[in-house]
Amino acid sequence: MHSIKPLANYFEVELGKYIFPTTPSNLYDPLSYFLQLGGKRIRPILTLMAAEMFGSKKESAIHASMAIELFHNFSLIHDDIMDKAPLRRGQETVHLKWNDDIAILSGDVLLIKAYQELAKQDRNHVPALLNLFNQTAVEVCEGQQLDMDFEGRDIVTIEEYIEMIRLKTSVLLGCALEFGAIISNASEEDSLLIYEFGQNLGIAFQIQDDILDLFGDPKKFGKQIGGDIISNKKTILLLKAIELAKDLKSDGLSMMMQVTDSEMKINTAKSLFTSLGVIDFAREQMTYYQQKALKALEKISVTSENKKILIDLSEYLFQREI
Amino acid sequence: MHSIKPLANYFEVELGKYIFPTTPSNLYDPLSYFLQLGGKRIRPILTLMAAEMFGSKKESAIHASMAIELFHNFSLIHDDIMDKAPLRRGQETVHLKWNDDIAILSGDVLLIKAYQELAKQDRNHVPALLNLFNQTAVEVCEGQQLDMDFEGRDIVTIEEYIEMIRLKTSVLLGCALEFGAIISNASEEDSLLIYEFGQNLGIAFQIQDDILDLFGDPKKFGKQIGGDIISNKKTILLLKAIELAKDLKSDGLSMMMQVTDSEMKINTAKSLFTSLGVIDFAREQMTYYQQKALKALEKISVTSENKKILIDLSEYLFQREI
Repeated sequence: MHSIKPLANYFEVELGKYIFPTTPSNLYDPLSYFLQLGGKRIRPILTLMAAEMFGSKKESAIHASMAIELFHNFSLIHDDIMDKAPLRRGQETVHLKWNDDIAILSGDVLLIKAYQELAKQDRNHVPALLNLFNQTAVEVCEGQQLDMDFEGRDIVTIEEYIEMIRLKTSVLLGCALEFGAIISNASEEDSLLIYEFGQNLGIAFQIQDDILDLFGDPKKFGKQIGGDIISNKKTILLLKAIELAKDLKSDGLSMMMQVTDSEMKINTAKSLFTSLGVIDFAREQMTYYQQKALKALEKISVTSENKKILIDLSEYLFQREI
Repeated sequence: MHSIKPLANYFEVELGKYIFPTTPSNLYDPLSYFLQLGGKRIRPILTLMAAEMFGSKKESAIHASMAIELFHNFSLIHDDIMDKAPLRRGQETVHLKWNDDIAILSGDVLLIKAYQELAKQDRNHVPALLNLFNQTAVEVCEGQQLDMDFEGRDIVTIEEYIEMIRLKTSVLLGCALEFGAIISNASEEDSLLIYEFGQNLGIAFQIQDDILDLFGDPKKFGKQIGGDIISNKKTILLLKAIELAKDLKSDGLSMMMQVTDSEMKINTAKSLFTSLGVIDFAREQMTYYQQKALKALEKISVTSENKKILIDLSEYLFQREI
């Protein structure tokens, strides 16, 4: 069993060995560029961790973990087009550095390359890996569509929001972990439990991200504080605030959303969200999903020692200041 | 062994039973719309034909044939965005009827749905089907990128052009046929030969399409005559003409390309291409690849009777007036 750091290093070295063809350069250069922009590589590391936890060597899961990372990057390249995002990890996005057509087609081929990696796993595991991957990939697309749909809607319930983040971001964490279980021939029950762990951890993590947008430590958060608030993004905080303000017949929120000065807007949001109890609500929700994740992990039939790496990871993910 | 028509009917009925989820409607409605626009469904029918030719029932290849058709439609939806095409089969394209974002994401999910169909085949065949499908899908993307790259280039050799159409359109015909061979547990040699047949037939068909653009019977061609000429599209005719005109130091071609009146442009192209011998060249190329296809078919170790359906298909494809 390795700890997080050595697995991260191992994956980074293997990713460095993953080379795209040289031509057509307009198809593959954007992918070499995008993959070297970095990132925490949490998803592929989850696959390696789960493989080890259920008794395999990390090497036996490398192609499945690569598939997860390639898929994740495919979804980022296409999402960046749809979101008209200028930057990714502080660098120009593919659709800006090249153009939309190249970003579409490079993204397409990256998705196929993910399947190509998956097909390199032991052929006995390929059908199960493929089924889970297909289901997950469809759900990620559905989540992205819901996210876009929500932008144009006035009311989105908390339930709908949780379902959206479950699909858009959390199922891939579940899939990454279950890949490790499948490769190690874990029981069906354990496979489902590790998926459950990943999915709920993902939901908790996304809720944390919503909270950190407003209340995070700028040094630790790594993104612009208040970005969601400035753009009136429908986070769990804003959605709950809309729900509560409606019941209270309060005008404070709709006034806040129209403020154009960023600093004033952020400060107004902070005090409004705190007085409405929105922050407490979000923290409760986060803890609820975090606990749900840990309960699923507890039930898995491997030693506590083998589970430690995932508990450590869970603590690592939630150590960001709230 | 069925003939073309009953297989086409069978596939159309099965496609009619293929239902997308109802939500998110912005993700799936465009797909239901696009798939019912029609088309000759030649690719999936090839899979069914090959499966029967090598001794299986058509039903055993239905999911693989569906995968081929879904993939083909995915590539059309994304190509239409890149080509800014307003119409597909006389109806509005997805990116116009909805928008670019929806066309990107619907296309993505359709590609994944193709893999989902593939995964429904007998699990013993899934690894081989998946490998061939991955390779083919990557090549189709490479072909599309080359096609876009060629638009911005002055000189494209005939060799480069043939390689582009091989990747963009012909490998998928080879893949569709080899799927049938894999499902019927045909020998590796026969699998390669049927692929060869499909690939070369595809190249011949594309060259025929270039010729028909200018010399086809408007009633039979189904597209606007001269469309390629009007938009100065780099077809095999124009590329060969550029090559020959350069050697002859003739100005006729560059003058023709600047003509804005459609009818005059088409008539000038017709006489110029004929006098340069470009049409004869293209016909020779077409016949060369058609013969190459038939030679591969000849070598396959099944009875002549079983090959008849593919010979009939080849004749059917080339019966359009030239």
